Amino acid sequence: MSELSPTSAEPIAEIAAAIENHSSFVLISHVRPDGDAIGSQIALGFALMAAGKSVRLINEDGLPDNLSFLPGSEKIETPPAEPIEVEVAIALDTATKPRLGENALAAASRAKLWINIDHHISNPSYGDINLIDSTAPATGQILYKLIQSLGLPLPAESRDSIYTAVSTDTGSFQYPSTQAETYEMAADLIRQGLDVGTINSLIYDNHPFRRVELMRALLNTLEISKDGIVAHWELLDQTRQKLQLQPEDSEGLIDIIRGIQGVLLAVFFEELPDGKIRISMRSKDPRLNVCNIATEFGGGGHALAAGIRMAGPIESAKSRLLSAIDRAAHTAGLR
Amino acid sequence: MSELSPTSAEPIAEIAAAIENHSSFVLISHVRPDGDAIGSQIALGFALMAAGKSVRLINEDGLPDNLSFLPGSEKIETPPAEPIEVEVAIALDTATKPRLGENALAAASRAKLWINIDHHISNPSYGDINLIDSTAPATGQILYKLIQSLGLPLPAESRDSIYTAVSTDTGSFQYPSTQAETYEMAADLIRQGLDVGTINSLIYDNHPFRRVELMRALLNTLEISKDGIVAHWELLDQTRQKLQLQPEDSEGLIDIIRGIQGVLLAVFFEELPDGKIRISMRSKDPRLNVCNIATEFGGGGHALAAGIRMAGPIESAKSRLLSAIDRAAHTAGLR
Repeated sequence: MSELSPTSAEPIAEIAAAIENHSSFVLISHVRPDGDAIGSQIALGFALMAAGKSVRLINEDGLPDNLSFLPGSEKIETPPAEPIEVEVAIALDTATKPRLGENALAAASRAKLWINIDHHISNPSYGDINLIDSTAPATGQILYKLIQSLGLPLPAESRDSIYTAVSTDTGSFQYPSTQAETYEMAADLIRQGLDVGTINSLIYDNHPFRRVELMRALLNTLEISKDGIVAHWELLDQTRQKLQLQPEDSEGLIDIIRGIQGVLLAVFFEELPDGKIRISMRSKDPRLNVCNIATEFGGGGHALAAGIRMAGPIESAKSRLLSAIDRAAHTAGLR
Repeated sequence: MSELSPTSAEPIAEIAAAIENHSSFVLISHVRPDGDAIGSQIALGFALMAAGKSVRLINEDGLPDNLSFLPGSEKIETPPAEPIEVEVAIALDTATKPRLGENALAAASRAKLWINIDHHISNPSYGDINLIDSTAPATGQILYKLIQSLGLPLPAESRDSIYTAVSTDTGSFQYPSTQAETYEMAADLIRQGLDVGTINSLIYDNHPFRRVELMRALLNTLEISKDGIVAHWELLDQTRQKLQLQPEDSEGLIDIIRGIQGVLLAVFFEELPDGKIRISMRSKDPRLNVCNIATEFGGGGHALAAGIRMAGPIESAKSRLLSAIDRAAHTAGLR
């Protein structure tokens, strides 16, 4: 393992050498992939292909429906049963190696060199070469700069995927992580031919009807505390089955209740097929540290976004969590 | 009336002279103001004040709640009863003079010079000086360039208002009207101190609870045609009264159903206090020209966004409009 500083220019030189000296690459991103994961694979993958390299794009869970509009997404494959004969494996947007998935890791097991490119601050630099920039709002933005630094081609597939990766990971250029450079990158991609109206329409205005049905089902369970600081809603497993929901269908919906005036904490209770309850919490106020609350129940995360898996049934999970939130709100002087 | 070409540099020189030669200004935007209207008033208003001018910011309907977070918004006032003693009136983001509102026009009636700055293509150049750029995605972007061209100061109020004007008029940098320059402008505003995370949280994550209640009420009336190309929902006047809705509460909600896969036409039926039915239509397909459909009922608009006011009751309005849509879909070969 190399011990490079994340801000060092060395990993870029090492990546340049790795690309120069090898001809076959497998690019992998994390399980349950989102726009930054798949977008990063296509972005770097098509740039390498345009430079004449042999490239496979592998994801443990394959391509989610909501990203199948991306040009080049047809190259994303689930892991083959046999290990691939490949020289270099590149992990993209994946904070820990196990998050690449068991089958994807097995498929890439013959690689003799691992490159790890990511923007998660918790990434322990598990590659032989590590390019980690936790100030970047998305791995897609790191790749945009990398492709420029290396002088690689930027085919249309890469251009559109970089935009999608960064747009989805910044909530359409809204999150605090968004930088002046992020907007400048988008401007440059437009000047390079990106059709900004069309791609946004494909990213944001093209959801399956079942997502709207899910929104309605969740809103019909919405409860808000008397003092207005805690809002929560829930999804029963029977609703998931009835609407034939996919994992990506609920993505971002919690923002609807997190965005209510006065709400400091939004909670999503989800009954899983095995009867366990998955809980997602989003806080708007650092005084309500949801990571601390999650830790009480064996969960984890960050101060403003954390998760728990708890035993069911849902009513008892709700009551235990809401009591813990109440204690935390009292301790913080918010109640 | 001057007959300046919209792309001519002359209006900018004339505006420069008007500012140089006068000391008092009233800035007005359209009735039922949105982010680009109010944002444009604050943006130019505070730049002029920072340059030592006397400025009033007037809106027929005053400041909507959802824009009261904007620094400087406390300067927005409803029209005073008596005409203001002012030399120059500046109309912002307002396609026709009557859209400024009767009382606002009366308040500005002593102005001897009218400046008209707008991005609506239908603007008939009703000012003495007209700066119309229909390629700009928002009037806020025209003002950003104008403030630069004139060498006016850009105080924090103007900076934040320009961002808000442009972000809200482009659906957070998503609409086809968004340009490379639009993103470059946002980058520059960040470099000038804009706190991008905070302002977006105030614009997008700070809606009143009643807006979420409205979303739920609308979703519970959602209907989608068997072939999936037409989706519609409705708001009864009693629901508006029960939830104590404000006009801005429904802004943008139609995008939820417009964004459903396969839907080509989204329709919002709204029962008004006088019993009339206000209909908003959004098309995703130029073959379904909603302006043509609206015209059949005395309404109007654009090919992809149009509106109608129809006699009630709501059930008969729905049935008449859905029949017209069915005919249009057949004519277009979509049914």
